[in-house]
Amino acid sequence: MRQRPQRPHRPSRGGHQSVWLYGRHAVLAALANPERRYERLLVTKEAAERLASELAAAAPKTSIMSREELSQRLPAGAVHQGIAMLAGPLEEPALEDVLARCGENALILALDQVTDPHNVGAILRSAAAFGVAGVIVTERNAPADTGVLAKAASGALEIVPLVRAVNLARTLDQLKNAGFWLYGLDERGDVSLGGLDFAGRVCIVLGAEGEGLRRLTAEKCDRLATIPTQAALAALNVSNAAAVAAYEWARRR
Amino acid sequence: MRQRPQRPHRPSRGGHQSVWLYGRHAVLAALANPERRYERLLVTKEAAERLASELAAAAPKTSIMSREELSQRLPAGAVHQGIAMLAGPLEEPALEDVLARCGENALILALDQVTDPHNVGAILRSAAAFGVAGVIVTERNAPADTGVLAKAASGALEIVPLVRAVNLARTLDQLKNAGFWLYGLDERGDVSLGGLDFAGRVCIVLGAEGEGLRRLTAEKCDRLATIPTQAALAALNVSNAAAVAAYEWARRR
Repeated sequence: MRQRPQRPHRPSRGGHQSVWLYGRHAVLAALANPERRYERLLVTKEAAERLASELAAAAPKTSIMSREELSQRLPAGAVHQGIAMLAGPLEEPALEDVLARCGENALILALDQVTDPHNVGAILRSAAAFGVAGVIVTERNAPADTGVLAKAASGALEIVPLVRAVNLARTLDQLKNAGFWLYGLDERGDVSLGGLDFAGRVCIVLGAEGEGLRRLTAEKCDRLATIPTQAALAALNVSNAAAVAAYEWARRR
Repeated sequence: MRQRPQRPHRPSRGGHQSVWLYGRHAVLAALANPERRYERLLVTKEAAERLASELAAAAPKTSIMSREELSQRLPAGAVHQGIAMLAGPLEEPALEDVLARCGENALILALDQVTDPHNVGAILRSAAAFGVAGVIVTERNAPADTGVLAKAASGALEIVPLVRAVNLARTLDQLKNAGFWLYGLDERGDVSLGGLDFAGRVCIVLGAEGEGLRRLTAEKCDRLATIPTQAALAALNVSNAAAVAAYEWARRR
């Protein structure tokens, strides 16, 4: 059973506009992704020499320029490592397609209003490392954020499906219907991460730092679990919490 | 047996200059730290009202200003949440003092040329969360970086001893002499993180992303271990790797 999204157009990751991707890992992964279209590739002379074989096929769209010229085309402070790509947006995968590809023991991470693109990018990267089947977010990012996200993801944006939920509660219901256990990480949890049952399909839900899970999100979860920490400064950065959760899941498989 | 450092002056965290700390957690933790001296506290009207009780004792040194005025005094892009402190540097703890306070099952994290202040700050935060006895770094940061580090550490800079090693190989020898097992996280490792013996005093050594551990650092380690990941985009962000390692250590205690 495939549900049509209730919006008229399927949005793409980072909106419909082209975005600047930058940094070696992010750009090379985008080049290696057959789904990714791009308009231009900007590289410094040094980067062009060092990455000659990787960039050979992109030659018709490549411009060589100085590091300073490159910096001027990117958001302030972008650490580009001498390479940037003006890329078309990736088509956003539909949740039902991601679910259809999930195995019987898949892990999905759902992020409840985690908006910092550094954090979302780092979480995608951990997701790729630990074989997570998909990451669900609640917010749509501006194109500038997509560059930051792609850089922090270090190529994982090309590999791990990133699904934007218009309504997270409804999305969590879809996961439930697809046989997923929903485990929320929350300080109100009555079980530790290590005490969760990871058999079958699992979705781990993480909230924004300081805010935690929203009430409705927490209510949707089958269980709330904590990562055991010292009292004083207990809260982990959300990307670190996601890495620990994905590690714990992967460790027990 | 206490060895004197070979340098004439004991440097302080972030150098001898005052630094701007900003963000709610970082500043409130600094205010709560009796070791931390400060010159001025800058807050917006909104933050002053919201944090009235926490800031009461600091009133003589507090200036109220607009969000824009506050931003102008801080590094570009600093996410200050309406509060900043011009703080004196913390005295850097001596390694031997940190070791003297370590219990028989302490964990220390050593970072081999991990220089990004966001990463070091996030690692300090995970260290506080999992009860790590200290973090050793190889680089000294500029004052501007210290603000970023303190913000990312979300208060943990006031709690977890941060030791700067002039010569990491020599520092690792000191740890060995103090009974620590040295485990390096490195893709060349012949054991997984989960297979390490965490009995007794343990130091986990992490390298910079891309670079990994330097040869001499790796040779000092008793064992090299890997965090098991998928092939494609295997490498975790270093702060995520540190969080996973500290979690695995804490989990088994």
